Amino acid sequence: MERTHRTTIRVRYQETDAQRRVHHANYLNYFELGRVEMLRAAGISYRELEARGLLLVVAEINCRYYLPAEFDDLLVLETTVREAKGARIVHDYRLMRGDELLVEAQSTVACIDSSGRVRRLPPELRL
Amino acid sequence: MERTHRTTIRVRYQETDAQRRVHHANYLNYFELGRVEMLRAAGISYRELEARGLLLVVAEINCRYYLPAEFDDLLVLETTVREAKGARIVHDYRLMRGDELLVEAQSTVACIDSSGRVRRLPPELRL
Amino acid sequence: MERTHRTTIRVRYQETDAQRRVHHANYLNYFELGRVEMLRAAGISYRELEARGLLLVVAEINCRYYLPAEFDDLLVLETTVREAKGARIVHDYRLMRGDELLVEAQSTVACIDSSGRVRRLPPELRL
Amino acid sequence: MERTHRTTIRVRYQETDAQRRVHHANYLNYFELGRVEMLRAAGISYRELEARGLLLVVAEINCRYYLPAEFDDLLVLETTVREAKGARIVHDYRLMRGDELLVEAQSTVACIDSSGRVRRLPPELRL
Repeated sequence: MERTHRTTIRVRYQETDAQRRVHHANYLNYFELGRVEMLRAAGISYRELEARGLLLVVAEINCRYYLPAEFDDLLVLETTVREAKGARIVHDYRLMRGDELLVEAQSTVACIDSSGRVRRLPPELRL
Repeated sequence: MERTHRTTIRVRYQETDAQRRVHHANYLNYFELGRVEMLRAAGISYRELEARGLLLVVAEINCRYYLPAEFDDLLVLETTVREAKGARIVHDYRLMRGDELLVEAQSTVACIDSSGRVRRLPPELRL
Repeated sequence: MERTHRTTIRVRYQETDAQRRVHHANYLNYFELGRVEMLRAAGISYRELEARGLLLVVAEINCRYYLPAEFDDLLVLETTVREAKGARIVHDYRLMRGDELLVEAQSTVACIDSSGRVRRLPPELRL
Repeated sequence: MERTHRTTIRVRYQETDAQRRVHHANYLNYFELGRVEMLRAAGISYRELEARGLLLVVAEINCRYYLPAEFDDLLVLETTVREAKGARIVHDYRLMRGDELLVEAQSTVACIDSSGRVRRLPPELRL
């Protein structure tokens, strides 16, 4: 798996709020999409992972918002795996519009099974 | 169960969009909340219904939007059971801000089990 | 403008609910995306339309849900303009997963200006 | 203004995802609701603040998720102002279900005007 993945995201109208910018909670959905597409690019289906009983749940997320995205903006999300061992993956995110850095974030996801117990990452997710 | 239930809803910022009004999809969440609170008022927990393996799924919904709701508006939602027999419940909704009628809607929910098969409504949901 | 437009939509995790299917309100966001992409395919930017002071607001929407979409499904949305004259556009929607028809809907959007007054559709939106 | 405010939040069905828990992005909406209700309890309407041309925008948010909330849970959100001077307010959040701490977070909101320029907090928001 490449350590960094790029995906493009078009801002939907419903993602904006009355300040005419993307509501700050919606960027977390973009980051989730980044994680899923990064796995897909490596030949891994997150859907199949869940079907096998392994869930990745967000344990921590930290976001810094620099500039607002607006409706119809075409954004580029860079998702980077900083660390993937034990039961946890740490990702860094950079959301860009052209040369402008809009949002930076970092998250930690933990691997659990369907009963909620922490599980080691499967080999294909380790780095 | 009373045929009509009233619940108040305060518009959240995240529910608005760049037109500075509640995004039209979000009213469907209000109607869902109306159905859940109507059951609760009758002593029925929708959560327990699902725990028993019965799900209510929306089969049809029709909405007419007359006036926009805005951030922080305090709305009153009237939810009425028009019909509840066989495997289906038909609800009517009227969303008001004071004397103004903002949105009217009607939905049909169907009762299914966890395998997706249509099931008769349990007795406490029939009218 | 072609009368029918097709766009593909990948279901996001955040669009699902505890029934493990796409929450019924989220399909309305897909339909909105269909309208925006249909305009784009015809060389019209909805964003610029709003910048010129013309807003399209949903006046009515009717949905029939046949089969649930799930996380990661790759859907095809067919958006058709049935009528576009005066101040209103009527669209039909068919959301497909392969050969399966998941959701059918119809909406009416009205053209207003920033003060909320109804306005005739600009020539490029008429049919 | 009290430094700490408590508000109760009932989890809506639409806020859950296919993992049968509240989607992690939705907690940010709860925190926003906490900020708005905390102001209201102090006699300040965030809606009027925006009508006067002052916007509070989220510049940073950090969340740690310990335990999942589920549909219909009745949660208590504690919102605390840690600091409010210059153009920024720092809030701490603790989201509880009974004695269980589900999510802890901290955010920084910045005061801007409608043209996006940073502005000093109005006196009633300073601490």
